Amino acid sequence: MNFGIAIHGGAGTILRSSMTTEKEKLYTDALRSALQSGYSVLEKGGSALDAVETAVRSLEDCPLFNAGKGAVFNNAGAHEMDASIMSGKDLSAGAVSLIKHVKNPVSLARAVMEKSEHVFLCGYGAEDFAKQMNLEFADDEYFRDEFRYQQWLKAKEADSTFLDHNIQSEVRSPKSEVNANDKKFGTVGAVALDKDGNLAAATSTGGMTNKKFGRVGDSPIIGAGTYANNNTCAISCTGHGELFIRSVVAYDISAMMEYKNLSLREACDEVVMKKLVKIKGEGGLIAIDKHGNIELPFNSEGMYRAMKSSGGEEKVEIYK
Amino acid sequence: MNFGIAIHGGAGTILRSSMTTEKEKLYTDALRSALQSGYSVLEKGGSALDAVETAVRSLEDCPLFNAGKGAVFNNAGAHEMDASIMSGKDLSAGAVSLIKHVKNPVSLARAVMEKSEHVFLCGYGAEDFAKQMNLEFADDEYFRDEFRYQQWLKAKEADSTFLDHNIQSEVRSPKSEVNANDKKFGTVGAVALDKDGNLAAATSTGGMTNKKFGRVGDSPIIGAGTYANNNTCAISCTGHGELFIRSVVAYDISAMMEYKNLSLREACDEVVMKKLVKIKGEGGLIAIDKHGNIELPFNSEGMYRAMKSSGGEEKVEIYK
Repeated sequence: MNFGIAIHGGAGTILRSSMTTEKEKLYTDALRSALQSGYSVLEKGGSALDAVETAVRSLEDCPLFNAGKGAVFNNAGAHEMDASIMSGKDLSAGAVSLIKHVKNPVSLARAVMEKSEHVFLCGYGAEDFAKQMNLEFADDEYFRDEFRYQQWLKAKEADSTFLDHNIQSEVRSPKSEVNANDKKFGTVGAVALDKDGNLAAATSTGGMTNKKFGRVGDSPIIGAGTYANNNTCAISCTGHGELFIRSVVAYDISAMMEYKNLSLREACDEVVMKKLVKIKGEGGLIAIDKHGNIELPFNSEGMYRAMKSSGGEEKVEIYK
Repeated sequence: MNFGIAIHGGAGTILRSSMTTEKEKLYTDALRSALQSGYSVLEKGGSALDAVETAVRSLEDCPLFNAGKGAVFNNAGAHEMDASIMSGKDLSAGAVSLIKHVKNPVSLARAVMEKSEHVFLCGYGAEDFAKQMNLEFADDEYFRDEFRYQQWLKAKEADSTFLDHNIQSEVRSPKSEVNANDKKFGTVGAVALDKDGNLAAATSTGGMTNKKFGRVGDSPIIGAGTYANNNTCAISCTGHGELFIRSVVAYDISAMMEYKNLSLREACDEVVMKKLVKIKGEGGLIAIDKHGNIELPFNSEGMYRAMKSSGGEEKVEIYK
């Protein structure tokens, strides 16, 4: 039985010309480390669920990515995070949004899935549940990062939001057209197929820099940012959340495979390179099907991504 | 050009034997009034979006249904509401969750859709946005209803939740299996097709009695509780929210029509009477397709529902 895992650390305007060799190495090392942590779980016969949770925790613990420790500042100067996880075996799912101080949001999403009767918990209530579950909390200092802080001050001064962190630290004004030249969608995610043929997907994010109004993107939305079904595939998205929600992106890939008999590659191409491009829905996703085929499509300049399959294939890539 | 509208006021264990003639009349009058308010919009050449917003506002203003004024009490004794709306013309959408004191949550969802760059706003942030938009707020007294209050006291005493209001006011323990004999899914919704061929859908709810942990159901989730696409259909769901989220119910109907060329009736039958029944996903939905065909399927004992089409057909029904 084939098995494998893919991860992402966000998509967007990630140009080789804006990178230093040193910075590039930091990112690829972090991706490789997260990939390996998830792959090891699978190799030892562990579940796809454990593999995606492990890999996403690794990315959440890394300050480079906008999730967990690396979460950006919202308008109030706090770190508000969203996450979700889904099991392809029984379509069980868990999601949380707008949570603060929870060290690993993906693990809270998993606790919601496995230890509550609910799928989606939000805000203070979700934090109360995390306390009941004895999940690890971290203080503001843990989430504070000088780069993110400067980014936030700049956004706040301009009364603007970043559509997540970006390398040039450029800001865009509220209500402006999404501009492909100034952003990176800060999200992390993982998808996996285990030796038992079970699929799983997980996604986690720190949202938009200086975001107001309790904005929630696609990351915690089952069907939009995350989906897994043993009959088809497992998907984790990263991109312009609003357009991903409206397009029900993750489930759309699965539906095209199930109802139109498309291959994973064909469905990914249709959704990411055609449907999303048509509505300027910038971003990408990682996908694995029940046979272990992996696709890492994106329509942006770059996407932090990595994959490793039992067949021996391994990739850690950033640019187009 | 055909046009038409359908509405629902929740599904669940609604038995003729538990109803009085007087109570039945209250419900059917309220449904007829909401139906007519939406139908009038369409008849005058108004948009499907205006029609569904108008009909849902009417249901939100009625204390009989678990949405708006009739919203149930959460564990903290407050009224926390969710709503969403979607336009089939351009797939634009707006959703809010866990909002308090906003008189008509569906109108806030529409403001999010039309006047923000976001799709989904949650909690205090969504309320801040409502204030900026000058939407109408109402105090606790407006939302207080003696029946709902007694229902809550009973649930609180038993440390249980109601899976929304129900006629027998029975409680179920947390984590218990969903039991078809003791609940009604309190949600309201509307779907419409206007003279210009545009589809729209909207859903609004007060959630579960005595709910904790900021639980969010399918009502504000685009793709799960609400979906509209001019190429296929408009859908508003009511049922066991967690299972509706995991099944991406609303978008699944649309996907089956688009990718498998099923009729609206065939897709509704497949999703509501087969897929949902298989996972004990109790509830139902209202649906209208681009030709004006209307379906009102449910797998529960009853569903408050009504429909009216330009072809002359009109129905106001409660039981199977």
